[in-house]
Amino acid sequence: MIRMKTSSYFLPDLRDAPSEATTASHRWMLQSGMIQSTVSGIFTWLPLGLRVLEKIKTIIRQEQNAIGALEMLAPTLQPATLWQESGRYDDYGLEMLRINDRHDRVLVYGPTAEEVFVDVVRRCVQSYKSFPLNLYNIQWKFRDEIRPRFGVMRGREFLMKDGYSFDLTEKASKITYRNVFRAYMRSFYRMGLSVIPLQATTGPIGGDFSHEFHVVAQTGESALYYDAVLDDRNVPRFEVSDFQGIYAMVDEKHAPEQCPVPLNQLRVARGIEVGHIFHFGDKYSAPMNAQVFLKEGRKVNLQMGSYGIGVSRLVGAVIEAFHDERGIQWPISIAPFSLGLMHLQESLEPEAAHVYDRLQAAGIETLWEDRPLSSGEKFALMDMWGLPFQAILSEKNHHKGHIEVKIRRTGERHFFALEEFLQWILLQCKEHITLAIIETS
Amino acid sequence: MIRMKTSSYFLPDLRDAPSEATTASHRWMLQSGMIQSTVSGIFTWLPLGLRVLEKIKTIIRQEQNAIGALEMLAPTLQPATLWQESGRYDDYGLEMLRINDRHDRVLVYGPTAEEVFVDVVRRCVQSYKSFPLNLYNIQWKFRDEIRPRFGVMRGREFLMKDGYSFDLTEKASKITYRNVFRAYMRSFYRMGLSVIPLQATTGPIGGDFSHEFHVVAQTGESALYYDAVLDDRNVPRFEVSDFQGIYAMVDEKHAPEQCPVPLNQLRVARGIEVGHIFHFGDKYSAPMNAQVFLKEGRKVNLQMGSYGIGVSRLVGAVIEAFHDERGIQWPISIAPFSLGLMHLQESLEPEAAHVYDRLQAAGIETLWEDRPLSSGEKFALMDMWGLPFQAILSEKNHHKGHIEVKIRRTGERHFFALEEFLQWILLQCKEHITLAIIETS
Repeated sequence: MIRMKTSSYFLPDLRDAPSEATTASHRWMLQSGMIQSTVSGIFTWLPLGLRVLEKIKTIIRQEQNAIGALEMLAPTLQPATLWQESGRYDDYGLEMLRINDRHDRVLVYGPTAEEVFVDVVRRCVQSYKSFPLNLYNIQWKFRDEIRPRFGVMRGREFLMKDGYSFDLTEKASKITYRNVFRAYMRSFYRMGLSVIPLQATTGPIGGDFSHEFHVVAQTGESALYYDAVLDDRNVPRFEVSDFQGIYAMVDEKHAPEQCPVPLNQLRVARGIEVGHIFHFGDKYSAPMNAQVFLKEGRKVNLQMGSYGIGVSRLVGAVIEAFHDERGIQWPISIAPFSLGLMHLQESLEPEAAHVYDRLQAAGIETLWEDRPLSSGEKFALMDMWGLPFQAILSEKNHHKGHIEVKIRRTGERHFFALEEFLQWILLQCKEHITLAIIETS
Repeated sequence: MIRMKTSSYFLPDLRDAPSEATTASHRWMLQSGMIQSTVSGIFTWLPLGLRVLEKIKTIIRQEQNAIGALEMLAPTLQPATLWQESGRYDDYGLEMLRINDRHDRVLVYGPTAEEVFVDVVRRCVQSYKSFPLNLYNIQWKFRDEIRPRFGVMRGREFLMKDGYSFDLTEKASKITYRNVFRAYMRSFYRMGLSVIPLQATTGPIGGDFSHEFHVVAQTGESALYYDAVLDDRNVPRFEVSDFQGIYAMVDEKHAPEQCPVPLNQLRVARGIEVGHIFHFGDKYSAPMNAQVFLKEGRKVNLQMGSYGIGVSRLVGAVIEAFHDERGIQWPISIAPFSLGLMHLQESLEPEAAHVYDRLQAAGIETLWEDRPLSSGEKFALMDMWGLPFQAILSEKNHHKGHIEVKIRRTGERHFFALEEFLQWILLQCKEHITLAIIETS
């Protein structure tokens, strides 16, 4: 059994706040050793950061699969010809990275993948029997931002979940859109986030109907205008209709003179966009000839929607939502480890090893701070890493048969006997045990 | 609960063998709807193919973690400056895809990541206490092959597990090398493969010591020369020393006049390279100044190795090893589904649904062929997809209270009552239940 000990883990934390970081998430991700900047807007994910990214992927995947969406994987590089066919090759401008291969054929590093998915579907299926189809992938994308900033929140190479739905009728397509809307809200909820869905403009993706999903945070780049009732609507089981007819607009769509919400009821906030969904009918299927014959013999263009979540951006957005002056405060569901274990005196190392083994046997993901640091240094590191729970073994408490537990977010402390502690922590974490299962054979 | 039914899954199988496919794996991957070619040497992985890729990743990850290697993730695009620093920028030639960004800075699509990992480590760690470090990632790579061929086996964009180890001494570094060697052999073994490790030349990675791992297959591009005793050495628990001192050379290293193996004992075979490991000392750490102070104050260059597995190539290599004229024969551990369920008469659909639900409850990954096809068509598709087990419900057997089970690889058939069947299949699959766990919440 491998014990996750800081002495053998790769945790290159920085003493001081890095000067290039202007937001909390950028600072804490660099400082706690989650990422390293490889070149402007392009990051290497260190082990601690990758664990969070993988957990976010798992939640998104589970919620997509739950609505019958099927995971596949488009390549990062796409032929320019597909973009010429849809008419977007010239629209995209300098943000799209264009590459000449050795035979001087032009490839693009996909900033999104509508064309590739339409191409897959039109080449495979002729019959109406194959629909509805809702396909998604989680893949690295590239947008050549002129001024990358805020760390992973506006990087150039970024991880995106992008999904594409194909229906025979507009009605069916809108039902799919609502299902994805619900899956998105559930995904964000499971990450511990309060997310506001807002009516949005469609931008370069195009189409006639669109929502953005925003985490409310002071460092957000977007201005949001919404009815205050939405602040209470983000519940685990909800209906999409709970959000319909309620005023919620991004900046470009908000018109003060037409806003029906009384001023004292109107929230004006900053938001970080973490998702964007579009219904755009046959915008791509028409020019790219993605058509099928209906049962009665009539040929129709497929009705499409596309659905994006910024997976790597979410890591930053969650930190913007959950941190204090000492570091990160992870929600349990996506914390890199659920619990940080530390012993304050070297004499307690055997006891700590025993507690570690019991935690591991119970399936609790534990990081054990076993380096010869001072108590103060250990407390500071643990608070920075932001693991939801800290278990502290000290001689004083050991004599009483106690383990001290600190809840990172509230600062609350409990004192438990070992068995009591194990039962308690299992109860806190049991809905969130995902990664540990696939990591060990 | 979502039932994986072919009518709602995305399985765009082709009637006929695609003309561009010259090898069995390329043919069957296209024909069974595992992949689609997006542009020369670049593929989209459809749901069936992605499941195999993910299972291979999981096995590799588990075996890497078991030796204490830590997973992280380098970006796909890397700054050219790092390659200039190591001296490899000019060595790599046209196979390396070079890209100018909007500010005319040169990026490369990483064909490997020695430089990025050295850069990560040298920027993070100054103290000998941080070592040994063994870091890996599973990330898309690009090599601009002049003539991409054999489908995913010699594509341009490909998925690779690449790992990099950092030790303080050459002795420690060679111990790490042996640990990775063992982890590689275990990974291949768990995928059902017989793999021969051979002494190899070091090529563009460089260094003084290297092994290639080859799947023996007639369609392999490499010539292998090895002592026949190796054919029996591929056992689940073995010692690296079992492979030492036994003659095994790739083409470039084989010198007939110096070969100590008698001719009747020498195997001459074709192989598909699925792994390659290198020990290269300070080849990168010296020019890139990746140095640390030892306890006694002396500064040393870090001793490195690098370790690669062709993850996407393995999908093809496994099919080359396991197929017949009717299709693929997946090993259970990486099959997209463990079992294919079919009912031959429409009247048996409720019974099939019941069997499906029981299988799902038992954790058996099942694909249910529920489309209104003839029995012959269903049999042909199932054989092509190559799921290890087929459960066939027919009226004839239903009257007897029997489920017919066919083992794809051997053609063996069994007849079971339902409960008996469930017990039997669970026994066959229980060591291989991985993906199902993370797919559902």
